Amino acid sequence: MKRGFGSDNHSGFSPEVIDALVRANDRHALAYGDDEVTERLRVLIKDTFGPQASIYLVFNGTGANVLSIDAMCRSYEAVVCAETAHINVDECGAPQRVVGCRLLTVDTPDGKLTPALVKTRLHGFGFEHHSQPKAISISQPTELGTLYTLDEIRALADLAHSYNMYLHIDGARLANAAVALGCSFKEMTTDQGVDVLSFGGTKNGLIMGESCVILNPALDNYMLYRRKQMTQLGSKMRFMAAQMECYIESGMWRRNAEHSNRMAQLLYNELRDVPTVRVMYPVQVNSVFVQLPREVWTSLQEDYFFYDWDEDANVVRWMCSFDTTEDDIRNFVQALKNRLK
Amino acid sequence: MKRGFGSDNHSGFSPEVIDALVRANDRHALAYGDDEVTERLRVLIKDTFGPQASIYLVFNGTGANVLSIDAMCRSYEAVVCAETAHINVDECGAPQRVVGCRLLTVDTPDGKLTPALVKTRLHGFGFEHHSQPKAISISQPTELGTLYTLDEIRALADLAHSYNMYLHIDGARLANAAVALGCSFKEMTTDQGVDVLSFGGTKNGLIMGESCVILNPALDNYMLYRRKQMTQLGSKMRFMAAQMECYIESGMWRRNAEHSNRMAQLLYNELRDVPTVRVMYPVQVNSVFVQLPREVWTSLQEDYFFYDWDEDANVVRWMCSFDTTEDDIRNFVQALKNRLK
Amino acid sequence: MKRGFGSDNHSGFSPEVIDALVRANDRHALAYGDDEVTERLRVLIKDTFGPQASIYLVFNGTGANVLSIDAMCRSYEAVVCAETAHINVDECGAPQRVVGCRLLTVDTPDGKLTPALVKTRLHGFGFEHHSQPKAISISQPTELGTLYTLDEIRALADLAHSYNMYLHIDGARLANAAVALGCSFKEMTTDQGVDVLSFGGTKNGLIMGESCVILNPALDNYMLYRRKQMTQLGSKMRFMAAQMECYIESGMWRRNAEHSNRMAQLLYNELRDVPTVRVMYPVQVNSVFVQLPREVWTSLQEDYFFYDWDEDANVVRWMCSFDTTEDDIRNFVQALKNRLK
Amino acid sequence: MKRGFGSDNHSGFSPEVIDALVRANDRHALAYGDDEVTERLRVLIKDTFGPQASIYLVFNGTGANVLSIDAMCRSYEAVVCAETAHINVDECGAPQRVVGCRLLTVDTPDGKLTPALVKTRLHGFGFEHHSQPKAISISQPTELGTLYTLDEIRALADLAHSYNMYLHIDGARLANAAVALGCSFKEMTTDQGVDVLSFGGTKNGLIMGESCVILNPALDNYMLYRRKQMTQLGSKMRFMAAQMECYIESGMWRRNAEHSNRMAQLLYNELRDVPTVRVMYPVQVNSVFVQLPREVWTSLQEDYFFYDWDEDANVVRWMCSFDTTEDDIRNFVQALKNRLK
Repeated sequence: MKRGFGSDNHSGFSPEVIDALVRANDRHALAYGDDEVTERLRVLIKDTFGPQASIYLVFNGTGANVLSIDAMCRSYEAVVCAETAHINVDECGAPQRVVGCRLLTVDTPDGKLTPALVKTRLHGFGFEHHSQPKAISISQPTELGTLYTLDEIRALADLAHSYNMYLHIDGARLANAAVALGCSFKEMTTDQGVDVLSFGGTKNGLIMGESCVILNPALDNYMLYRRKQMTQLGSKMRFMAAQMECYIESGMWRRNAEHSNRMAQLLYNELRDVPTVRVMYPVQVNSVFVQLPREVWTSLQEDYFFYDWDEDANVVRWMCSFDTTEDDIRNFVQALKNRLK
Repeated sequence: MKRGFGSDNHSGFSPEVIDALVRANDRHALAYGDDEVTERLRVLIKDTFGPQASIYLVFNGTGANVLSIDAMCRSYEAVVCAETAHINVDECGAPQRVVGCRLLTVDTPDGKLTPALVKTRLHGFGFEHHSQPKAISISQPTELGTLYTLDEIRALADLAHSYNMYLHIDGARLANAAVALGCSFKEMTTDQGVDVLSFGGTKNGLIMGESCVILNPALDNYMLYRRKQMTQLGSKMRFMAAQMECYIESGMWRRNAEHSNRMAQLLYNELRDVPTVRVMYPVQVNSVFVQLPREVWTSLQEDYFFYDWDEDANVVRWMCSFDTTEDDIRNFVQALKNRLK
Repeated sequence: MKRGFGSDNHSGFSPEVIDALVRANDRHALAYGDDEVTERLRVLIKDTFGPQASIYLVFNGTGANVLSIDAMCRSYEAVVCAETAHINVDECGAPQRVVGCRLLTVDTPDGKLTPALVKTRLHGFGFEHHSQPKAISISQPTELGTLYTLDEIRALADLAHSYNMYLHIDGARLANAAVALGCSFKEMTTDQGVDVLSFGGTKNGLIMGESCVILNPALDNYMLYRRKQMTQLGSKMRFMAAQMECYIESGMWRRNAEHSNRMAQLLYNELRDVPTVRVMYPVQVNSVFVQLPREVWTSLQEDYFFYDWDEDANVVRWMCSFDTTEDDIRNFVQALKNRLK
Repeated sequence: MKRGFGSDNHSGFSPEVIDALVRANDRHALAYGDDEVTERLRVLIKDTFGPQASIYLVFNGTGANVLSIDAMCRSYEAVVCAETAHINVDECGAPQRVVGCRLLTVDTPDGKLTPALVKTRLHGFGFEHHSQPKAISISQPTELGTLYTLDEIRALADLAHSYNMYLHIDGARLANAAVALGCSFKEMTTDQGVDVLSFGGTKNGLIMGESCVILNPALDNYMLYRRKQMTQLGSKMRFMAAQMECYIESGMWRRNAEHSNRMAQLLYNELRDVPTVRVMYPVQVNSVFVQLPREVWTSLQEDYFFYDWDEDANVVRWMCSFDTTEDDIRNFVQALKNRLK
């Protein structure tokens, strides 16, 4: 297909993943996570997120998010999230079907919740007619490419805990956030009071690497049964664990994320001077949201693949990947400029 | 770990899988199945199962089975299956949670349903207090390593259709059955009137290769939404498709299944003369169920990994894999004989 | 307890209900709706809503709404409704748990959807990541006491049908709407293209009388099983049917609704001249929403029971019932005025 | 319709129910259980079952059973019950849809579980592939009209608790059991260690009176939300509570159950000498299961309504009600004898 800026899951995988798979392909191993590679990963996750952390490998981001919600909420409880949150918009109702709970959504200017925004949904406690708010879920980075500071995460965690609620991070692109903020995974999550994390590497160079990481041990209950019953238990788990181990241990998460973030900065820099092109949000990670005339972006789509984001507002999303090159960016911007002449 | 006869998913993957993954790792591709490899697989599946067949790749056998049931049944309907069926025993209630339906189980002598056995559960039609029987599900081979003949499958399909019901095959090990019966996948499924198939290759040499194949096009409805909402949609699907394509196209399914079946025959032949060892069922595919004194098998488990099957009856299961060697068998039988002296 | 203006389900039942129960208590009758009274009701409903209408008696408004949604939507589909809709706010997530679907909510100024508002949620068709919009649900009257005109209902039905969707009315207080608009139930529903109706009488003088009325016969599928499986099948149904029959046939629905609407008008008229009291919405049925100083309404709650509606905005709801008297109103307003002095 | 022996819910209601409804119809009352009648019932239930007991009124037996199961089990857990149990056979899969759990059924000779029978399903603990047994559910009396002694109940409770499981009684006809055993409700439940009870009066003279009674306070969690979300919260609850209060306080439960039990004994005595009629189980409460020639019972059904129980075995069920008369019995037996000549 056309190269492009459609999504970071349009790219393939980093070559080191193959080595990890081949190394793990050593004789027999127990299935379903009772193998040595998965055991090593469990230790590595504790090194990475703190000794209280437990990882449950799953197949995809939907599985990670739904398992995370299931760990926090009963069906009569609810999750507060941004209207734009992936769990709200892009899971085809998986939380509703599998957990049976409600999502309480909040409109946001930039994809980010604030304590004040969350509080608008914190009512009806003790009233049986209303789903009981039990968790706050944020995406880091958000679906709009914006970032929470560590203090902002801490403030949401504190708010959640003051209401006997939990804080969840959808971290499908957590590596991009960590690189941008210059902090470790632990500093961004455990240290700020995050309770549950969807932690993924598929969008950053793995074939398949997603997980639910329980950071608050009080929530580490019956997770094996929850995962199995919601269809997310893998049999030859050593090959899932090997990828995630490689992702963390080899520094691949950092290399790939630094690269895709840098490509987005390059794209942003090239666009800044271009008239009629308006960048919508701060470019903090690997995506650039741009408003530009419809005839321009539809023409550009003839040569490059990318998604419309908001057709009514003429906003499109350009997403950089670990394998995006500087030439990709320069050629793309040139093609754009040619159409603006 | 100890080599052993625990399960065919304790083995790793065949080396040709890596080549398939590397070939598919070519530049960008649309995610979620809109890529060229998955498109090729769709065509290949039609070549394999007939032009009416559609494949929906999923992550694991649970996903394949639950998606299959969802395609056939509403929550107020029911699936007739053997008490020993994987969907009944080994899914931790996933069909109940995700589809919300009932399973109507039947005791069987050998894991196989017959029309007479199924009919014992076919009543209450039109009576709103009873879940309405809507599908029959069989495993081919069964969980006890036994096989349905083509005529037996046809008879169950005819019975199902005469009640306006559907026939599903759980084919996690379908290759072993096809090899044993000397027939093609199509002859065993489409040609006998099977409506839906869980078709898997993970137990036969893939890293991850499972799918729901809709053979009756009347059931090919809203499958994309069903799969997504039950958390079974993969993003970089080309790497799932590449494995399944390799599995079918390279003949790997046949080579590996022939081998593991042959190893089970070898094991059976070596055991036949051994006193106090009783083989429980006909050895038709790659498993051997054996009754022997408890002190023998617990001692044997010190050196070889395998599962108790029925502790009360002192029955254990020995499962051969694509990577089981003749030496594995001979050493194992020798170790057994040493303990019987 | 204190008399008050809390809700129209705080009132008891009209005496004619007892006569209906006693009449139905005649010897034996088949259970679960196969009795003569329920059969008479089925005919009466066809007389009332048109020959295509089918009634399914349920226990409460939640049951009626969830059964209605189940008739229209699969779990991967969605219902567009007002943010203030009872199905969104006041069912503790029952649609999510029982049907597994999403609700797509819209902010409204007055509790009423319009085609333009609905269209903001009509996107993502054919995109498996998004729940597919399949129904529009409105409350008539709305939770804010406002009314849709017949033309407005027609416009929403036309919009729904143009998208291959359905229109549902939550008619827990449908009698109040019919009386206010001076039209029949059929003119307000069937004649405007409404597909499914939650039709209730509990808030208007019955002990228990709620139902799902299918107006579009294409949706009249498997309703008996749906009702049973979601726990809403009553055994001695003749006593539920007898109440609903009495409600319609005796004109009780009209008498009671005319009265409670008239009481709300009286209350409104008495309030119009009172300074610092702001009536929030047009008073069209039996509720009056009022903004007034917090210290006034909390003081008033010492003598009269009513609910805060929006604490932040100092808005309270005063609801009149079939048994509210003119003296109730006058005494209440006097008590209010005393506190405003 | 024809009088008959179809079911005890084919009878109407006892006249004292009307008085209770009229007494409760006194001015306004808070809805949803916050009224004085429901509060009095809560106290009465503590008097009846012990101070730790809490009652949650629901609409029907399905609601009582599903709410009970929800109080005991998560979706990945399971309930052991008899194959003939109402929760297994007659709820159209409501436990599966609403709770998402499995039922582990056991064949029984007479509808009664024993510790030995239950133990056949108590395995797989800690194994994530298997639903975890968490509750035992028995019906008292059973669906076959047989009774557990107090010691038998105690033995099942002890077994349950030794496995960290719970014991539930489906007591839709608990009054008939209490009368037959000559014990109080408390002696049959709380005193034997029963954890949760479905307690109903609809089959014994009420219009509608069903409930979930939590006897083990450790299970009294979030019950209001569970009940609401599964659609079982009634608005004008005082009229449900008034019936149940009347049932217990007036001795109606005892009078009616004594009568229907006595009628079944009369029927049994009249049948004992009749050749070709075989009574299948001990007649302990208000039902008689009889095997007799098909042409006899089908002919008898022309004049009397009753249900086939097992068509293959030519077994029918004759159920007596609180309003069955001695003449009903004598005429019925005479009609039977006439057909046997």
